[in-house]
Amino acid sequence: MQILFIAGQNDEERLRYKDFVSRWLTAFDNYAPELKIHVYPDNNFAPDNIEVVLIWKHPYGLLNKFKNLKAIQVMAAGVDHALADKELPNVPIARIIDPDMAKDLAQYAAAYVLKIVKRIDHWQQKQEEHQWAKQPPFNFSHLTIGIMGLGAMGQATARILSNLDIQVAGWSKSSKKIERVDCYAGDKELDLFLARTDILICMLPLTDSTRNILNLQLFRKLKPNAYIMNLGRGEHIIEEDLLFALENGILSGAILDVFRAEPLPTEHPFWSHPLITVTPHIASMSNPDTAIAQVVANIHNVMNKQPLINIVDRKLGY
Amino acid sequence: MQILFIAGQNDEERLRYKDFVSRWLTAFDNYAPELKIHVYPDNNFAPDNIEVVLIWKHPYGLLNKFKNLKAIQVMAAGVDHALADKELPNVPIARIIDPDMAKDLAQYAAAYVLKIVKRIDHWQQKQEEHQWAKQPPFNFSHLTIGIMGLGAMGQATARILSNLDIQVAGWSKSSKKIERVDCYAGDKELDLFLARTDILICMLPLTDSTRNILNLQLFRKLKPNAYIMNLGRGEHIIEEDLLFALENGILSGAILDVFRAEPLPTEHPFWSHPLITVTPHIASMSNPDTAIAQVVANIHNVMNKQPLINIVDRKLGY
Repeated sequence: MQILFIAGQNDEERLRYKDFVSRWLTAFDNYAPELKIHVYPDNNFAPDNIEVVLIWKHPYGLLNKFKNLKAIQVMAAGVDHALADKELPNVPIARIIDPDMAKDLAQYAAAYVLKIVKRIDHWQQKQEEHQWAKQPPFNFSHLTIGIMGLGAMGQATARILSNLDIQVAGWSKSSKKIERVDCYAGDKELDLFLARTDILICMLPLTDSTRNILNLQLFRKLKPNAYIMNLGRGEHIIEEDLLFALENGILSGAILDVFRAEPLPTEHPFWSHPLITVTPHIASMSNPDTAIAQVVANIHNVMNKQPLINIVDRKLGY
Repeated sequence: MQILFIAGQNDEERLRYKDFVSRWLTAFDNYAPELKIHVYPDNNFAPDNIEVVLIWKHPYGLLNKFKNLKAIQVMAAGVDHALADKELPNVPIARIIDPDMAKDLAQYAAAYVLKIVKRIDHWQQKQEEHQWAKQPPFNFSHLTIGIMGLGAMGQATARILSNLDIQVAGWSKSSKKIERVDCYAGDKELDLFLARTDILICMLPLTDSTRNILNLQLFRKLKPNAYIMNLGRGEHIIEEDLLFALENGILSGAILDVFRAEPLPTEHPFWSHPLITVTPHIASMSNPDTAIAQVVANIHNVMNKQPLINIVDRKLGY
């Protein structure tokens, strides 16, 4: 049995993911030094001996060549890229579900929500003008943060925001119950959810039913002057619609951590848009130190012919 | 019996507090329309009939002229200004203790703590440079936020920060026990507390023992590259020491909401210091809508010869 790590679809991407791979290899060395991990395409490996692949943005069609493949471990929380491979072998797929990643994402969301509701930019501008612009207290108890997607990440974010005494609503495909969060579910309740949302946070998985969900029609259903934060995937958002909504006062601002093309091209209009905050897909990254245990557990599961943990439902897409 | 509202030491201050007074008067109209509130010095009032004063920065010596004064209600959480009146009559003093004020202050602290630890300024600068500067996840679990002062405000802040999965230590005069917070007490344990603090938040009351406590000697005892946040009083900090510490790399930055002179003079060096954030004493303001009940309760307590609530210990200074 051999284990192959594949990160990047082409040489340029593989170069970009070199650090990522090397941090994982260090984690393997520390946590399971007995395991030999081959790295595609540098190491010698025998395609017919590959039983487990560890992947992040693998070249499409490649996995199909490994005749004895038993399992695919995606080295991230989102598996949309893996599932988009039309020649993906029919073996179980696992993804990473890491409370630490959920915590990072929730803290990112909290940081930018507080930046908006505590009006940090406003005070910064007043400081630049040397203006002591004292005002009556600004009460934001009427504001609602709406979280789309109530998986591990969405739930952690809902919990952290409601602990900050901020009102939270949530929307998901199937109905959920979360303490202190008003939960909405399915297409039927989407408009109700949007109609009360001041800051919309997208934490959805990317599937055929969520692709392009952040479009002009949706933006118009939010409360006036709403903000959106996209922490899902770039393909959730129609970029032209976002620019139109910002230019026409339908939205007040956008915080974006994910993009259709990553790295975001230098000449892309988002970079210098005054109402758009761009961060380079850093809100939450798989952390080898905390996630190594579940990856090694899945390698052992394959060895022992046991089912994988954190297995993906291909139909649901997560 | 008459009730007199005094806000501002002189005409200029009184003009500045006009809105503040008028928001309180509206709250009285809504909550206790039967009470007549005189406003100093506009209304006709009879000094000998004044039994309750509601004060915020009153002119020193004035209260002493009210022979039948029974109680002083300070319309804020901090009473340092009131106690500094050397001719303050010897009657009970109450202050405002409002969970909503504590919440506002805790949210302010959380907003600026997250701005630092989630490196919002760093990402903003990378955006300005159109740079996709992706990096490995930044783990801040080793960072400690140190809160000085563990009254209602300090405790609310400690709770909110620890709910964000941020490590919190606290220091107070007398020893406290707070869940998930490492508590230190008294002069003896101050250095231990400082030695592990990366972001120091001052929420102390201003007393003779806390005046000038944020000085160069203290800054040097913090962890390297620490930040300070002053949400107490301007007199807690020695301004020259702060400037020296920032210029010599002893501190990385300061977030200040309170100042020795307020409004902060236009020519003050803090306004344009690149490492100082200035906000105009807005982190927490007494909110008439939520605090009116306790003020009216105290007026009734005087009428019914009952003890005040939220009474101040003159020796402790809070």
